[in-house]
Amino acid sequence: MMRKSFESWMDSQLARVECKLDELVCANVPAGLGEVMRYGVLDGGKRLRPLLVLAAAQALRADGEAALRAACAVELIHAYSLIHDDMPCMDNDVLRRGKPTVHVKYGEAQAMLAGDAMQALAFEVLTPDEDAGGGNPVAPPLQARLCSLLARASGVQGMAGGQAIDLASVGQPLDEASLQDMHRRKTGALLQASVQMGAACGGVGLDSVSWDALTEYGAALGLAFQVVDDILDVTQGSDVLGKTAGKDADQNKPTYVSVLGLDGARRRADALHQRARAALERSEVADRHWLVMLADRVVERQS
Amino acid sequence: MMRKSFESWMDSQLARVECKLDELVCANVPAGLGEVMRYGVLDGGKRLRPLLVLAAAQALRADGEAALRAACAVELIHAYSLIHDDMPCMDNDVLRRGKPTVHVKYGEAQAMLAGDAMQALAFEVLTPDEDAGGGNPVAPPLQARLCSLLARASGVQGMAGGQAIDLASVGQPLDEASLQDMHRRKTGALLQASVQMGAACGGVGLDSVSWDALTEYGAALGLAFQVVDDILDVTQGSDVLGKTAGKDADQNKPTYVSVLGLDGARRRADALHQRARAALERSEVADRHWLVMLADRVVERQS
Repeated sequence: MMRKSFESWMDSQLARVECKLDELVCANVPAGLGEVMRYGVLDGGKRLRPLLVLAAAQALRADGEAALRAACAVELIHAYSLIHDDMPCMDNDVLRRGKPTVHVKYGEAQAMLAGDAMQALAFEVLTPDEDAGGGNPVAPPLQARLCSLLARASGVQGMAGGQAIDLASVGQPLDEASLQDMHRRKTGALLQASVQMGAACGGVGLDSVSWDALTEYGAALGLAFQVVDDILDVTQGSDVLGKTAGKDADQNKPTYVSVLGLDGARRRADALHQRARAALERSEVADRHWLVMLADRVVERQS
Repeated sequence: MMRKSFESWMDSQLARVECKLDELVCANVPAGLGEVMRYGVLDGGKRLRPLLVLAAAQALRADGEAALRAACAVELIHAYSLIHDDMPCMDNDVLRRGKPTVHVKYGEAQAMLAGDAMQALAFEVLTPDEDAGGGNPVAPPLQARLCSLLARASGVQGMAGGQAIDLASVGQPLDEASLQDMHRRKTGALLQASVQMGAACGGVGLDSVSWDALTEYGAALGLAFQVVDDILDVTQGSDVLGKTAGKDADQNKPTYVSVLGLDGARRRADALHQRARAALERSEVADRHWLVMLADRVVERQS
């Protein structure tokens, strides 16, 4: 029953996100750039980050335009990072979400520019103008807070910094602490920020115990996501994943499986799953069931 | 006398910007990324955009931390765009500000990542946390306004969109209207936003007549800058410019000189200069002298 209502909650949230992204990423921009951006972000992906934003916002009974915009902004950052990471000078990947990567389809220059424009668009989305009545769908102090959280998760202390460590660590033996530091930044920071941005939409009602607990939930879930990614990279084929499987091992990149072994990685994913659930228990927010089920989904997913 | 005090005003503002950028772009970030970012932004460039931010803020008697952060944020966006534009898949340039371009020195992957991280950093810089006393050097509603202006100037309707038109126009005959549309976006939007961000730091005191006049000043100055750039590209050598001269003609890119001829381009620059000065006259701000002199400098510069 709960499982069924979770699926239907996910479907309805995904439809909202898809519809809003379709509106925000216009085709009607110069020189075909809109088409490239739309190819890179629409109609694909698990949309885990937007779901985390919306689940966290709904846990705090906040579910308006601000949360939906935050959900789209986080996905735009994620999508731009995939476009740039796939380029020849980075991971040089040709397949993503079961389709040719952006640079394969549109060329490197357009791929780089589309990624750059998508990062800017994320911050445009968070800072809407006043509407005709002088109101704003996102109150300016909340705009500022959301921009702050997203920028820090995307930058040198977050995703871009993690990517730099990743680049530097190819062929290097990394111990587990260094591997964890890399992933906390590279994928963890944006997943954690998704939870925080949703919670921020809940406004002033959130006590610091709950903020810290939700932050801890986001951090544990973020690492669990990466551990599971590393497991799936060696246990599933490209057809299931929609991207090239086994690349990390081929490129001699350290992973949780290479450092902990397959069984060790599975135990680590379970431990992080428990930590995420325990953090949610400590939070004093009312409606945490979608957050619980998203954590379950992250660990139990097969692709 | 005025000329001498303008030079000394510029020197003191440039010192403030350089010092703040040095603080904001830390070397102490993962895997050498900080060093790449510092190479890309410190110790070089005319800093026209930061000077416009600070001159506009000072015209409104606003000259605190907010204006200085806005000045640095705009320069970070400009510097990231140069790094990405110089890459082999875009303009493939090897010389910038008299030094090897970032990708020549550090490789393409680091150049792309450093640019990405610098765009994020611009928005981090605009959204500082509260200080220990619970105050904030940039009030949250102003943070939101600055993020909004900067994101829109950087994105599809601004710089990135203009760059896309530029890419698509190589070898194409562009009429003057299309050339102007490209430059309004590619370089004009960020120069105009520099003036607007400085004015926004002046806060609620600014009437809409002055806002519109300063916006018009920024737009005219932004186009004048590009016209002069096109003139210098054919009249100066690489040693004077600190970047590869004559590239646009070599790459068969439309420029103001190719469309209007050298004399026509010079007349256009003068007309835009007059438009910028006339707009300033219409504004009701008190201290517009640095803005006047910056417009003079943009048109009279030799490099």
